[in-house]
Amino acid sequence: MQHSSDGSVDPIGHVLLALTVILAAAKIAGHVSVRFGQPAVLGELVAGVVLGNLPLAGIDAFRGIAENPVVDILAQLGVVILLFEVGLESTVRDMFKVGGPSVAVAVLGVAAPFALGWGVSAWLLPDRGPYVHAFLGATLTATSVGITARVLQDLGRSRSPEARVILGAAVIDDVLGLIILAVVSNIITSANRGETVSYGAIGLVFGTAVAFLFTALVLGVTLSRRIFGVAARLRGSGVLLATALIACFGLAYVASLVGLAPIVGAYAAGLILEEAHFRPFVNRGEQQLEHLLHPISAFLVPVFFVFMGMHVDLTAFARVNVLGLSAFLTLAAIVGKQACSLGALGRPLDRLSIGIGMIPRGEVGLIFANIGLSLQIAGRRVVDEGVFSAVVIMVIVTTMVTPPALKWSLGRSARTPSAR
Amino acid sequence: MQHSSDGSVDPIGHVLLALTVILAAAKIAGHVSVRFGQPAVLGELVAGVVLGNLPLAGIDAFRGIAENPVVDILAQLGVVILLFEVGLESTVRDMFKVGGPSVAVAVLGVAAPFALGWGVSAWLLPDRGPYVHAFLGATLTATSVGITARVLQDLGRSRSPEARVILGAAVIDDVLGLIILAVVSNIITSANRGETVSYGAIGLVFGTAVAFLFTALVLGVTLSRRIFGVAARLRGSGVLLATALIACFGLAYVASLVGLAPIVGAYAAGLILEEAHFRPFVNRGEQQLEHLLHPISAFLVPVFFVFMGMHVDLTAFARVNVLGLSAFLTLAAIVGKQACSLGALGRPLDRLSIGIGMIPRGEVGLIFANIGLSLQIAGRRVVDEGVFSAVVIMVIVTTMVTPPALKWSLGRSARTPSAR
Repeated sequence: MQHSSDGSVDPIGHVLLALTVILAAAKIAGHVSVRFGQPAVLGELVAGVVLGNLPLAGIDAFRGIAENPVVDILAQLGVVILLFEVGLESTVRDMFKVGGPSVAVAVLGVAAPFALGWGVSAWLLPDRGPYVHAFLGATLTATSVGITARVLQDLGRSRSPEARVILGAAVIDDVLGLIILAVVSNIITSANRGETVSYGAIGLVFGTAVAFLFTALVLGVTLSRRIFGVAARLRGSGVLLATALIACFGLAYVASLVGLAPIVGAYAAGLILEEAHFRPFVNRGEQQLEHLLHPISAFLVPVFFVFMGMHVDLTAFARVNVLGLSAFLTLAAIVGKQACSLGALGRPLDRLSIGIGMIPRGEVGLIFANIGLSLQIAGRRVVDEGVFSAVVIMVIVTTMVTPPALKWSLGRSARTPSAR
Repeated sequence: MQHSSDGSVDPIGHVLLALTVILAAAKIAGHVSVRFGQPAVLGELVAGVVLGNLPLAGIDAFRGIAENPVVDILAQLGVVILLFEVGLESTVRDMFKVGGPSVAVAVLGVAAPFALGWGVSAWLLPDRGPYVHAFLGATLTATSVGITARVLQDLGRSRSPEARVILGAAVIDDVLGLIILAVVSNIITSANRGETVSYGAIGLVFGTAVAFLFTALVLGVTLSRRIFGVAARLRGSGVLLATALIACFGLAYVASLVGLAPIVGAYAAGLILEEAHFRPFVNRGEQQLEHLLHPISAFLVPVFFVFMGMHVDLTAFARVNVLGLSAFLTLAAIVGKQACSLGALGRPLDRLSIGIGMIPRGEVGLIFANIGLSLQIAGRRVVDEGVFSAVVIMVIVTTMVTPPALKWSLGRSARTPSAR
């Protein structure tokens, strides 16, 4: 409710400018990307990198966008909506079908990068302690399901068995990654205070995550049909969309409440809801939920990807030690996730695509690096500016490498099904 | 990109909770409202009042929502989208057809409430100077086009000639109101500094507003077809929606840049865009823009109305002097706008509905009151807590009285067309 009568720009003005610039950049760059045979999401990321580094070219007009807290939240709502949409494309039953491979893929895809990241850190940062090595290992664990989900969506492959294994594994390794992060942070905080590590706290974090997912899926599947049945009796327009958004935002909130990433809750909400629940709405002539959600995601999802690109600081590439650390971290991240394909051994799945699909470390990697900036051990920050830049570069390279690689590998398997 | 691993709720968590609560309250209250034959928007406002005053009943869980700056911006994006949608239902040509009555209605509807508001203030606040009277008069000038637009939309009447006169006049009186506000604020600021009033500054504010609307409409009509023609050649999905949103947010931003309310720009953007411009998109099988926008407005517009309701402090009603001032201010606001019907004399229009449609003072009245809180004259605030509460009550009563009254009067004229 703020307004200024003196001609200066008020908060809503900044947000309006940011959305105008982001949407225009996303659509133009997306067009260029599609023209070169790449998914639109790659163009959106590059558009973000360009926008975020315009100050290097002396253009400061858009500097405020990357720091705008409201645009940050809109971007996060975008990824929440994206994961909800992706979740809607599968059901809990589908998930259990691929549950075995997903868990195996996730565990291998967490363990291998963690070990490799620890090794790279121990080799290139010999003066830092094991806590720093553990922390860098942890930043490599969690796949950014957002990037892969979007690439699979752009390629029209998000209902394939590979997609379900990847997305299931990505959700599981998000949970595993957050557990590792919580555990490592806990150890560092305790060590910094001179205490011993609390196994109780570790158990609590682990238990919370498992309990949340189990409760959400079981309760959700039981209650969802009943809730939509009641909602279908409500008068007024937009009830189907509102009920679905309430499920999505509500579970995302509960996830954030128990210390998990909101996207875990949004994905769970999408898994729970099934087309059968919406039948009363569709029967009376309302649009399918997918059609109703699409404009909201077309509005908010590009905000997320452009915003993520904007946080890449290209000047960090100019520092040799940062470049070296980031190069080997990136290698560890990419090679480590190829262990995932072992989890799909003996199944009729495109293992290479699964390994590639697990590569991107997007928002979760950045979240980890952010937390590392605020952790201290013996008066020294666990993650300093150089290590932070290296992690950001790892995030961006793994993110940018995935769309073309996944497109290539899925195309390859589509051409030669026997290669599976 | 913020995240907490310690289980505390981060900013995105607060927003997710707020959206969950607001959407659930809006749909349940909207249902009740429709059941009682009222537009859904009334239910959304009442839901907001109830949510905002739950702390009176000892329930503090939702207290943070009304103060959340991100939810504030989402609400404002909601009213921007709403005005864009309403603008889309008319063209610039339509506007010129009703231009004469709209201008006459707007001018009368600004002058009469301004004079009445001044009178009420001079009568009930005899110890305050003419600046305070002028300011209170100014808070009564601008119709909240959002409320009326939504009621007309709920009733399926937003394409009627009355709707165009009301919405055209409301946009014009928003501009006139903002000019009066800017002028009065300027006088008060100058007087407080012991200076004489700057006519140059007054002229500048006035000129800016007129120039903005003129330029936007002329340039927009000229360029819009060409821009959509170029956009139609872009690859990737969601280009039509993105281009329309860019026009809406872009013009809303420019409006805020020149000191006008963003909704003025959004409405202008809607007026400019015509279905003919989208033909290349629709011809290749994409959905109509209205269908694409609807889910976004179904998501964000209720946030605006619930949020507005949440800012009503019911305890202010308990103070007798506040009650008296608010009662007479409300009366002045309602009676004053009936002068509008004189502007439609001699035309085949439902004059009573026009007068009623101009009654609501929503976001603009609150914006005015907000600004008054920060203005001082001779060390005393122009608008103190009591006057602020009176203005808020005036805003809420005029807002709540309009939907049923407009529904009744439009129904009456539909039954007896001769009464026109």
